[in-house]
Amino acid sequence: MTKGITKRNEDYAQWYLDVIAAADLAEHSAVKGCMVIKPNGYAIWEMIQAQLDRMFKATGHVNAYFPLFIPESYLQKEAEHVEGFAPECAVVTHAGGKRLEEPMVIRPTSETIIWSTYKNWIQSYRDLPILINQWANVVRWEMRTRLFLRTTEFLWQEGHTAHATAQEAEEETLKILGVYRDFAEQYMAAPVYVGIKTDKEKFAGAVRTYCIEAMMQDRKSLQCGTSHNLGQNFARAFDVTFQDESGKLQHVYATSWGVSTRLIGALVMSHSDDNGLVLPPRLAPLKVVLIPIWKEESEMEKTKQKAAELTANWHDQISFRIDDRDQYRPGYKFNEWEKRGVPIRIEMGPRDVAADQVVVVRRDTGEKIPMPQQDLLPRIQKLLEQMQNDLYQRALEYRNAATYRADDYKEFQSAIENPGGFFWLHWCGNPDCENRFQETSKATIRIIPMDGEKEQGPCIVCGKPSQQRVLVGKSY
Amino acid sequence: MTKGITKRNEDYAQWYLDVIAAADLAEHSAVKGCMVIKPNGYAIWEMIQAQLDRMFKATGHVNAYFPLFIPESYLQKEAEHVEGFAPECAVVTHAGGKRLEEPMVIRPTSETIIWSTYKNWIQSYRDLPILINQWANVVRWEMRTRLFLRTTEFLWQEGHTAHATAQEAEEETLKILGVYRDFAEQYMAAPVYVGIKTDKEKFAGAVRTYCIEAMMQDRKSLQCGTSHNLGQNFARAFDVTFQDESGKLQHVYATSWGVSTRLIGALVMSHSDDNGLVLPPRLAPLKVVLIPIWKEESEMEKTKQKAAELTANWHDQISFRIDDRDQYRPGYKFNEWEKRGVPIRIEMGPRDVAADQVVVVRRDTGEKIPMPQQDLLPRIQKLLEQMQNDLYQRALEYRNAATYRADDYKEFQSAIENPGGFFWLHWCGNPDCENRFQETSKATIRIIPMDGEKEQGPCIVCGKPSQQRVLVGKSY
Repeated sequence: MTKGITKRNEDYAQWYLDVIAAADLAEHSAVKGCMVIKPNGYAIWEMIQAQLDRMFKATGHVNAYFPLFIPESYLQKEAEHVEGFAPECAVVTHAGGKRLEEPMVIRPTSETIIWSTYKNWIQSYRDLPILINQWANVVRWEMRTRLFLRTTEFLWQEGHTAHATAQEAEEETLKILGVYRDFAEQYMAAPVYVGIKTDKEKFAGAVRTYCIEAMMQDRKSLQCGTSHNLGQNFARAFDVTFQDESGKLQHVYATSWGVSTRLIGALVMSHSDDNGLVLPPRLAPLKVVLIPIWKEESEMEKTKQKAAELTANWHDQISFRIDDRDQYRPGYKFNEWEKRGVPIRIEMGPRDVAADQVVVVRRDTGEKIPMPQQDLLPRIQKLLEQMQNDLYQRALEYRNAATYRADDYKEFQSAIENPGGFFWLHWCGNPDCENRFQETSKATIRIIPMDGEKEQGPCIVCGKPSQQRVLVGKSY
Repeated sequence: MTKGITKRNEDYAQWYLDVIAAADLAEHSAVKGCMVIKPNGYAIWEMIQAQLDRMFKATGHVNAYFPLFIPESYLQKEAEHVEGFAPECAVVTHAGGKRLEEPMVIRPTSETIIWSTYKNWIQSYRDLPILINQWANVVRWEMRTRLFLRTTEFLWQEGHTAHATAQEAEEETLKILGVYRDFAEQYMAAPVYVGIKTDKEKFAGAVRTYCIEAMMQDRKSLQCGTSHNLGQNFARAFDVTFQDESGKLQHVYATSWGVSTRLIGALVMSHSDDNGLVLPPRLAPLKVVLIPIWKEESEMEKTKQKAAELTANWHDQISFRIDDRDQYRPGYKFNEWEKRGVPIRIEMGPRDVAADQVVVVRRDTGEKIPMPQQDLLPRIQKLLEQMQNDLYQRALEYRNAATYRADDYKEFQSAIENPGGFFWLHWCGNPDCENRFQETSKATIRIIPMDGEKEQGPCIVCGKPSQQRVLVGKSY
């Protein structure tokens, strides 16, 4: 736990793993590609879950639970879907001591099992819309895994909605995209670009995939959430029809959308520094740690007692902890809570007690702020909101400063290597040009903006006319 | 949705399924033995989770997440454990398009994967205790399944704690047993007997299993939660040792404990009636439904408006809904909410509006109570608490009236068939006598009381001396 953290600019990938280890968030398990989410990491997931769940419910969604297992034949019903997911599936062939007649895959995503169920739930337009979300584990067999960012099993939420019209489905897809953007910006303090995926990058089975993309501190892009308009693809595959108001039989329109424990990776990489984890206050499970300090044994009781008095009415109002462990020195404790990303540390020594003050230390800036003990809690709460905003602003400035426009392919190729970043490029829409990019620069089109400035220009690859720029970057 | 509910005394098993269908809680899925937990059912699970999670955290536990997959070799490390669980396992043999070198089982319970992890976390007594809980899905391949009560996949929580001494582990086991009892009695309104399982009935790998047992309305017993003292069994199997304060190397002591979505089945069977679901108010996701009633079109707006006014300040205080759907008649709505187990229905017609009153209807008794509109919310809240207590008292009286002492084996055999119930019997402790019971009566020893009245008597099977009575009943 006291081992050092590699500096970001020395080895970014190792820094990321070191921050996770120092904050005790997760570790690789003995099971290939699976992680153990340790209590400190899981507490962040609980914060994420609680807030997103509130936002889903506020927009009319309810939770449900569908089976972990999907009969292989279900997966095969939607052609693009099976092509996209079959290679990643874990397959159960035996159970209860016997070989199964039909193998079952562990859900990599639940469209097929859910639409096979919706078939029985939907007859008439009166049964629509269905607005269901599920919190669950899913499995995708990954060759190269990385804690939180890409693991064989991960936790996520997946929304699956059913609608009577194409327009309603599109509105739902965009509504959730808005929820994801708000969550990223207001809670994760992570500015995101929102837009549409290219056909090559869209979800296997979707008509259109929208997503939010955030820039990490290595200037790479992390896809943080996706919202898919599935059109009638799954309704056709599972023959889910409804009688509309005029009595006509139609296929149902679908959406699906999800975010996962990957968001914890995004949080770690958005704000942390060379001293360890930095968390935006709104998603920090523990917001304040108060460290009473004493030199003489004789001062100990008084300082501890003052700490208890000071926080006596805090219990229902803020998540805090008093670290009055006797066997560790203050410096050790400062370091420990810093690594764990607790937003605010309060130091209180005998002189502070005498002067009716404390010293408040911001995790993000290291700034030390003396504060009177009177009305301390509202001051702390105000400071936490300030930190939340500051983290967002810093991330926004960082991203904006590393986002460029490029019109020359050679210059782009060089710039994406060094310094790296996001690049707005003209692209004609031809998948061949998209492939060319990817092969020569290892970068991908992250999004096509939905309401981007229309601007004529030549495709950076082939020179043919393009109507708008797209966002390109390397990604996780 | 409008189909009838079989009467309890005609066909109890069908009644149970009818209540679930009428309340739209869950259904069988196309995947053998797995269920779909529908939004109404999942909302109950969310209520259960939220309360238990609070209770676990209040007793010092934190949540974490361990992998779904367990290497087959792990399961085999604890002899009793593998014997108990291997026959029920689902096995993944292929993944990512290849045959796995070592098959993996889907966790039927997580002791083995967790203790293989704890091995790396524990070196010294300073690393103890570990007090971790996990909310997860598990899979046990069952031949005969029944919604909520026994399904191939189910949702649960499983606590896994590690301790330095046998005494601490025993204290933890009993502490959680207390949490389960409090939850059952205070939230589920289900009186439970607590005690120890016989060796035959204990968890595979435990030293001692404690449990809570509730009586359903068919007089059968449902095991609602178990808390296991695992002793050093899993620490030995996975070689998990720690240095104690004197520097000596010892194996770690363990507990594990869990409750599952089976609790929803227990809720359904404890309180529901021939009109459908009855839920204890504390676990009812929707506590109140207000139904404005009008005969003339002209009265509609006024009644609706009054309903909105009346509940204007309720939103953060109670979960309620106004059912002002125009296309259904009041009688249809009454029936619908009754089937769904909403504890309180408020009826308000034009005459009520004129008289500044409403009619409040209790779901449990059907009693209609006129109430003034003034201070309605606190009256409702008081009534909900009253209903919670009344449900518990009724269940307690029902159980006590169906709990007998029996000293003659023939009489017991006849009585357990008709009328059925719980029976306090003398048992000498010999597994042969236990087996005899089970074969001839289809009943099992549900618990050995922990602090039962000591009473000498002859074993009801063999006549040898017994020190205390044990509780016997048929079970799910």
